[in-house]
This record gives sequence, C-alpha cells and structure tokens, in this order.
Amino acid sequence: MQVGNGEGRSGRIRMTKCASPPRLRNILPIKTGTLKPSAALMERVRRPTMLSKLTSAEELAPLFKIGWSGFTGVGYPKTIPTVRALLLLPRKSFNLFVGASVGPEVEDRWAKLDMIARRYPHQVGKEIAKGINAGRIAFADKHLSMFPQDLVYGYYSLHKKHGDPRRPLDWAIVEATAITEDGWIVPGASVGATPEILQTAEKIVVEVNTRIPNLEGLHDINQSFVPPYRQPYLIVRPEDRIGHTAIPIDPDRVVAIVESTMPDNTGSNAPENEQSKAIARHLINFLSDEVEAGRLPPSLLPLQSGIGNVANSIIGGLAEGPFQSVQVWTEVLQDTFLRFFDSGKLEFATATSIRFSPEGFDHFYKNWATYKDRLLLRSQQVANSPEIIRRLGVIAMNTPLEVDIYAHANSTNAMGSRMLNGLGGSGDFLRNAKLSIMHTPSARPSKTDPTGISCIVPFASHIDQTEHDLDVIVTEQGLADLRGLSPRERAPVIIKNCAHPDYRDMLMEYYERALHECLKRGAGHEPHMLRNAFKMHLSLQDNGTMKVKNWD
Amino acid sequence: MQVGNGEGRSGRIRMTKCASPPRLRNILPIKTGTLKPSAALMERVRRPTMLSKLTSAEELAPLFKIGWSGFTGVGYPKTIPTVRALLLLPRKSFNLFVGASVGPEVEDRWAKLDMIARRYPHQVGKEIAKGINAGRIAFADKHLSMFPQDLVYGYYSLHKKHGDPRRPLDWAIVEATAITEDGWIVPGASVGATPEILQTAEKIVVEVNTRIPNLEGLHDINQSFVPPYRQPYLIVRPEDRIGHTAIPIDPDRVVAIVESTMPDNTGSNAPENEQSKAIARHLINFLSDEVEAGRLPPSLLPLQSGIGNVANSIIGGLAEGPFQSVQVWTEVLQDTFLRFFDSGKLEFATATSIRFSPEGFDHFYKNWATYKDRLLLRSQQVANSPEIIRRLGVIAMNTPLEVDIYAHANSTNAMGSRMLNGLGGSGDFLRNAKLSIMHTPSARPSKTDPTGISCIVPFASHIDQTEHDLDVIVTEQGLADLRGLSPRERAPVIIKNCAHPDYRDMLMEYYERALHECLKRGAGHEPHMLRNAFKMHLSLQDNGTMKVKNWD
Repeated sequence: MQVGNGEGRSGRIRMTKCASPPRLRNILPIKTGTLKPSAALMERVRRPTMLSKLTSAEELAPLFKIGWSGFTGVGYPKTIPTVRALLLLPRKSFNLFVGASVGPEVEDRWAKLDMIARRYPHQVGKEIAKGINAGRIAFADKHLSMFPQDLVYGYYSLHKKHGDPRRPLDWAIVEATAITEDGWIVPGASVGATPEILQTAEKIVVEVNTRIPNLEGLHDINQSFVPPYRQPYLIVRPEDRIGHTAIPIDPDRVVAIVESTMPDNTGSNAPENEQSKAIARHLINFLSDEVEAGRLPPSLLPLQSGIGNVANSIIGGLAEGPFQSVQVWTEVLQDTFLRFFDSGKLEFATATSIRFSPEGFDHFYKNWATYKDRLLLRSQQVANSPEIIRRLGVIAMNTPLEVDIYAHANSTNAMGSRMLNGLGGSGDFLRNAKLSIMHTPSARPSKTDPTGISCIVPFASHIDQTEHDLDVIVTEQGLADLRGLSPRERAPVIIKNCAHPDYRDMLMEYYERALHECLKRGAGHEPHMLRNAFKMHLSLQDNGTMKVKNWD
Repeated sequence: MQVGNGEGRSGRIRMTKCASPPRLRNILPIKTGTLKPSAALMERVRRPTMLSKLTSAEELAPLFKIGWSGFTGVGYPKTIPTVRALLLLPRKSFNLFVGASVGPEVEDRWAKLDMIARRYPHQVGKEIAKGINAGRIAFADKHLSMFPQDLVYGYYSLHKKHGDPRRPLDWAIVEATAITEDGWIVPGASVGATPEILQTAEKIVVEVNTRIPNLEGLHDINQSFVPPYRQPYLIVRPEDRIGHTAIPIDPDRVVAIVESTMPDNTGSNAPENEQSKAIARHLINFLSDEVEAGRLPPSLLPLQSGIGNVANSIIGGLAEGPFQSVQVWTEVLQDTFLRFFDSGKLEFATATSIRFSPEGFDHFYKNWATYKDRLLLRSQQVANSPEIIRRLGVIAMNTPLEVDIYAHANSTNAMGSRMLNGLGGSGDFLRNAKLSIMHTPSARPSKTDPTGISCIVPFASHIDQTEHDLDVIVTEQGLADLRGLSPRERAPVIIKNCAHPDYRDMLMEYYERALHECLKRGAGHEPHMLRNAFKMHLSLQDNGTMKVKNWD
C-alpha cells in the first residue's frame, strides 16, 4: 500500500508497517450500471449519470490511501467498509484520513483486522487505540482546523510517487444523503473534512444513505483555498452563511455510488453524575458573575462545549439556567443541546457534526421543522477556525486528562505516552477563545485507589495546551480564575481551589519546595523540582496511586 | 500601589510585593502651561490645546498602574521614566504594561531600583529578568496578539476598586512623533499595544519626541473592539491598509505632554557566525525545494522572522538568495531587512516595530523616501493576529531554547523555571503559519563544556509550542521535515538530522529504550521514560553538562 509520509526520509522509520512504497493497483474498471437503483435512491440522486455508476459495496473493496467522510462517529461511510470482500484482499493495510472519528463498527473492525497502517488525525475506539499504542498504526493528532488545510497543502503526500501529486488521496469514500442535479454532495450528520477529502482524492465513491433523511439545507459549505490571496471568512454571527448547501465536486471523478441503509451507529451520551453537576454549577455561577461584572453580555457569547458527562451537565444546566438567547459555536452537538433548544433558551447553534444518541436522532428527525432554521453544520476548517473563534469571542469548555499547577494541560497522552483519542479541536478553541475553560474531576480512580489519579499534577506528563492558553480551571472542588495571574500566583490558587483534598497538601508542598529551591538559584519564575516533576506519575505506575509520601 | 490581579482571591499569593490593595493617590493638578514650547515641538504638535498641557518630566513622577508604548526596545517613553524625581517617591512600585519590551535604560533601571511590582507580557534586560526570577517582580508572558485584547476585556483589572472599571490602567505614557490637529497620536518606531493602552488608561501623558523624524504615514492604526459583532480584518496582502495613520484618542484624557529629545536606545544586532549561516543555508535550500515541488510560489509566502543572529543570517541569505518579490509579515524588523530592501528582492514588509541599530536608524531615516511606501507598522493585535497569519499562509521562523525529540519546544524558561524574555509572538506565528519552522544551534556551551547544553532533549523542560504546531526543525547539523510524521517517526528524524553528534547516540538510546518499555505495556504512541525524561537537565544542574553516561 501507499504511504503519504516517511518513505525517502533520511531518518529511521520504525514500528510502522508502512515503510515500503508500493504501487497503486489498477483496480478499474469497477463493474457499474448493472444494479437497478431503488426508488429511495432514485429520489435522492438527482443527477441521472450518477445513477449509472451504481454498484455494490463488494465491488469496491481494494482501495488504498483513503479519505472518509465523518466526524465524531457520524456521517461516515457505513456499508463499503464492512463488506466481507475486504477480508479476501491480499493487501489489507490502508492509510485512513477522516475529519475526526468514525463509527466504531468500521474503524475498530478495521483496526482489529490489522487493516490500518496510518490513521490521521483523531480516532475513537478501543481497538484502534490499542493498535496505535502497540506500534502497529502510525497516528498523529493535529488541530482539527489545520488537518484539512495540511491535506490540501500536500503535507500528507510529500513523497507521493504515483498518480496526480495534487491529489494526496487515492480514494474518497463519503456519505451523502442526496446528490444534486449538478452532482454535488449533500452530507449527512457531519461535514468535517469531507470537502477537502473530496477535493484531494483522485477517485470518489459516494455512499448514498437512504435510511437517514435528506438533510439538504442543514449544511453551509465553502471551498478551501490555498494562499496567497485567501479571503476572510465573512462570519460575524453563528448564523451567518458563506457557502452552498452541498459540496461542489467534478462529477467525472465519481467512479461509483452505493446505496446504504445503515444508520449512524452512535451510543448513548455519557450520563451526568454528582461530580459533573457540581462542575457545571461552579461554571454557571462564574458565567453569571462575568455577566454581572459587565465582561459578558447577558446572553453570553457563543459557547463551545466538548463531549462527555461534564459537557452534558453544563449544557443541561444552561437549559435550566439564567441565560436567554444563547448562541453556540462549537464542534459537535450532543443530546443535551436538544434539551437546550427545547427550553427556548438556545437561539442558534452551529457545529461540524451532530452526534446524537439513536433516540436523540429520532427526536431530531421527527421535529426537523423546529430545528432546521436554528442549526447549521460547517466544515471543520470553518467550525474550528481560529479566525472566527477569536472574532466571536467564543467561551470554550473542554476536558483534559490532567492539568498542572501552572495551567498546562494534557489532552491526549496518559502518562505522557499512551494515546487516548487525540487533540481534536481543543487547541483551536482554547487558544483563541475569549474565555478558555478546562473542566475535570479533581481525581479519578486507579485500579486500587478510588482517588488514585490526581487530575492536578506538578508537571503535566504531556502538554497540548500551554499556560498561555487557559483562563479558568474548574473541578467539582471549585474554580480557579487564572486571568492576569503570574505562575507563582496561579499554583496556590489551582491547588487550593481545584485539587482533591487527598492531594492538596502534597501539591502545595511540591510548590513550596520548588519555590524555595528555585529562588535560591535565581530561577524562580515558574518553580519546579525537575527530579520530582513526574514523581506522582511514577508512583501511579509502580504503586497504583499518585499519592507519594514525600518529595525527598 | 494598585494591583490588577490577585487581591481578593481565595488562593494564597506569595512572593510578590503587590498583595495589598492601595488607593490611587490624587496627584493632580499637574503644573502645566508654564513652560515655553520649543520650535520643534510646536511643529509636531498641531493641536494648540495640547501645547497648553506642556510640562516637565519631573512633574509626572508619581504614577501608578501604567501602560507604556513600546515594542522590542523602540517607540517607548524615554524621558519621563528617567527623571530623578522618581527616586524621591515614598512608594516606588509600579505595575508596568507594555506591548513587549522597552529600552534597557528605563526598564532595567526601574527593576534595579525595585520600582516594578508587576510587568506584563514580555521583557528584555538582565535586571528585570533577575527581579522576576528572584520573586520580586510578578510576570506573566502571554501571546502578544492576546495581551492587548485581554487588557481591553478587563482581564488585568478584575478586582479594580478605584476609578473607572472600564479603564484598567491608571496612566498611559506613550511616545509620539507628532500630534495631529484632532489630537491623535502619531507613534514612533513601534505601534505594539499602544492603541489599547491609550484606550484603557484613565489619564494619558504624551512624550513628543522631536529628535526622531515625524513618522506620519508609516503606521496603519485600527481600533480594538470587543465581541459580539466584531468584524473581520480585511487584509489579504501585507500592504493592505485598514485604518488611520494616527491613534484616535479623546484629547480631554491627555493631562500633560512632555518634549523628549532622546533616541531609541538600541544596540547592535547580533552578529552572524558560521553556525547561523549554516542554519540559514539549510533553510533556504528547504524553501527552494518547496518552490520546486509546487508547495510554495516562486516569491514564497509572507515571511516572519524573529530576532537574533540566526534570523539575521536567514534574512541576509535571502537578500542574496534566489527569491524575487518577497513579502514580509512579521513582528519586528531588524537591520538585515534594510539589506533585504536594498537588494531589490524585498517587495513589501509589515511589522509592529522597527528595531534597527543606531546606524540602521540613521540609514533608514536618511533614505526614508525609498522605504516609506514599502513598509507599514501595525498594532501587535493585527501583526500577530492568528486570523491574518493563517489566511496569508505565513512562513514562520523562530528560535527556541530547546526542542524535544517529538517536537515540543521551550521558548521561555531555562531548566523549566528561569524566565528569559517571555513567549512574545512565537505561539501566534507558529500555531498559525503555513510553515512553522524552529531554528537553533544543536548545542550551546555550558560553563565547563563547549557542548554542555543540547538543544535537542528527550522532554522539553517547559513547553510553549506543542508537537501539533511545528513543521520543521533545523540546526547547523541539518533539517528535519516533520510534516505528516507520527511521533514515532519524528524522533529518529529529529535526532539524526538535528542533534549535535555528541548527543545523537544518547538521544537515540533514550528513544529506543522508551519505545521498548512503552510498547511492552501497550503505551507506545509517544514513548517516554518519565523517570529519565529530565535526566539530561539534572545532569547539567549537577555536573555542568547534559552528557549522561547511561539511562539506567
């Protein structure tokens, strides 16, 4: 199989299966035009020549460097990646580029079958994470706003030796809920990087999903250009439209279409608990105080909220909260946003995907008329754009793995080395928001200790968000407002307000000792004892708990 | 003195002198109108009521929370901060907010006299760094694009108890090279955060510098707004103007003007050496290859280049290099840019300051007519704007203290704790550039070992730029092109291409051992041995060299 990176470099490339540059197998012609399209499909595909490209998923198995549509487990191709014919291929290793994550039934399945050599720039699933951390899958996480741009720049195909160099991807496999008269693609529940994946693929296969309603009108699609002379995004309000309702493509590059009748395979949303509700309360109080102080308008500023139970509690809390006419500028919407809409307090929301539970999707499609004018899906390059996030003054809220006493945060690698899901859009939002907030439980259980893992540590074991990016840290214990504070002022506030009581003294002792040692040698701006910086992590590794006896 | 932060917080605030909230001393009325303005001053100050506010610098000593004009040691007030009367004050501790750094004769002098309690968001000078690292001065570095914005948001005056809460600063002391008929301020050699400092100060003092030429026309000044409904910056080329040639102010807030005849006290630029020239050669070859591959246009894309001898070598190299009609979008211009202009290859440059040597300034002012239409100074909020940097596809080049084997970089704190100068605009540019490049010597001398400090380390002891932000690392040893590489692919390339030969095997052994250990426990995405992550740093601390014998 073909690789986009690594080959021809002078550095040693290790532990990836993709080090030898193979040739593109000529798999054409694909047998098309023999299947009779269903009535549902004929309704959705409005360009007749496209129908003539109808084929079965089995025909399409042997693909190579592939971009898929999809984001946060919705809007991804569901039928083609699951055909049995794939298992019969002699070479089964693919480079897989998707806006973010896709459904576990395809991604995890491929990972389990060892069919993925390279996977960029985000993923969700036990099997794929296992493959990455076992050294079988080459993975790099990247700011989601930059990934599609870098794809178009050719940064993932620096050494491409076959085919068209301007088309880094051999294949795009994308989901559509309709194809227009012009042959343009109407996406499903996500836009993600689909426009750029279509733009950069040599050949295109479209899965037309006739089970999901035709979502035409839900999307705002703009084209991706390369500099120089790139233009501003003329968006000053979340509801502003700058593009089309479908993705423009050259229909001649479409080699086949396939009908799919499988739904997005989402699970339930993470349930709230006492901890997540406490975090939400602290946050809503803080936002109320900001309104009071005149630093936020009464309807707040556009909100970004991540995925997970804390995010659910916050959005749930806002649905019952004091703010009216709230707007949302975010990456992904989950079920609680439906509650927020239904409360009448959410005026408008825009994202790059809607990741509802199966029941959430049912509710959403049933009440389509009430939602459709208050909701817009954009490409991730726009939804996560630093330009727009900063201009709008977004309030960004995300969960880290751990935060350190000076407010650096780890969003990706447990113990510095084990990848969970990837960076996602956390850096895009936290770097550029007007208020950059990270929320986390103060401690998590290890195997042997219910508070064995402190989420506040002396030195984050991997740093994705820097001290220059975070304004507020909040745990169920309390909230630390770091705006305007120097590092020596930040540490005591974070420890006192946010750390779990089991760790408060331990962390304070680290800080005080570090301060003493560093001041003594005239190096006390951001005091650390480097010899002890990861002592809590090492203790977790060796003893199953971050609780250390002393700092000697 | 008044503090902007910290008081009223629940966290313990330590090691800063500014923990007790004092009152603004009523120092008015200032004696004005008794001095006779010089002919030079009358020519520069075109609004007669302003001349009636003329006073002497001695009158103005007792100021409090102050914003100064200035950036990279130019365009700062030079006369008022040096008056002897300051020494006679009973309270001599000030909170000093400046766009970036100012001249050493004022900042270092104040630091030496222990007159600075808080200093944001950047600084240059031995004495001020000493004060920060000794715990006497509270300092926080911040992305330079965000600092003026946060000032306007009120983030540096959360607990201000006196005066107008919308005006975080008590005083603005700014340099002007002219005052217009409307009372607007024409800045000197920098714009920096001066517009926002003027916007947020209760009272304004203007130092009109009659020694420096009237630089009217050199600046493009736009106003700073708060969300919602902020508009795009309509800049698609470095030469695009979006504002005025002077800073609009309400003349009634000006309480005094002072004439100054002191020049910007700049030193010489850092001299090039063989190492910096080698780095520049690698870089120019790389850029040529990118043009060849069609990923950059023949005139490149707008360049950003930092300060220092490598930056000088790069810009010097470009002056003799193969690229024509080059454009520059940067933070600060130094002498080599004059050579670049004079070579005919630099078409247009824009920055937020010009920091030439005294001879450079002479040359610049003498040839003003040749430069004035090819140069523009903007506020740092615009010059460092993520929006514009990303839109233009800037090529960003900066020097770190150290880079780690996975491409995280430390730009600020030696050994994790000792502040040098601060972050500056490195994060603004490196996060958003089309090509993000860091250049550094592979090793630096320690006191006892000529290569005692490796600039490539296993784990950066402080992280300002993340692995998600850097595309290229280059040392005199060679260049590592990291685009599209996973962490396990990056480490061998960085070590082999960039590390000093004295450290290559040592680093490779760290990587291989870490890989082995991490794969064993299924945590091998970004392999680390946390127990040894800072072993090289600790060895430097204890033994004067980063050379370690083994990784046991």
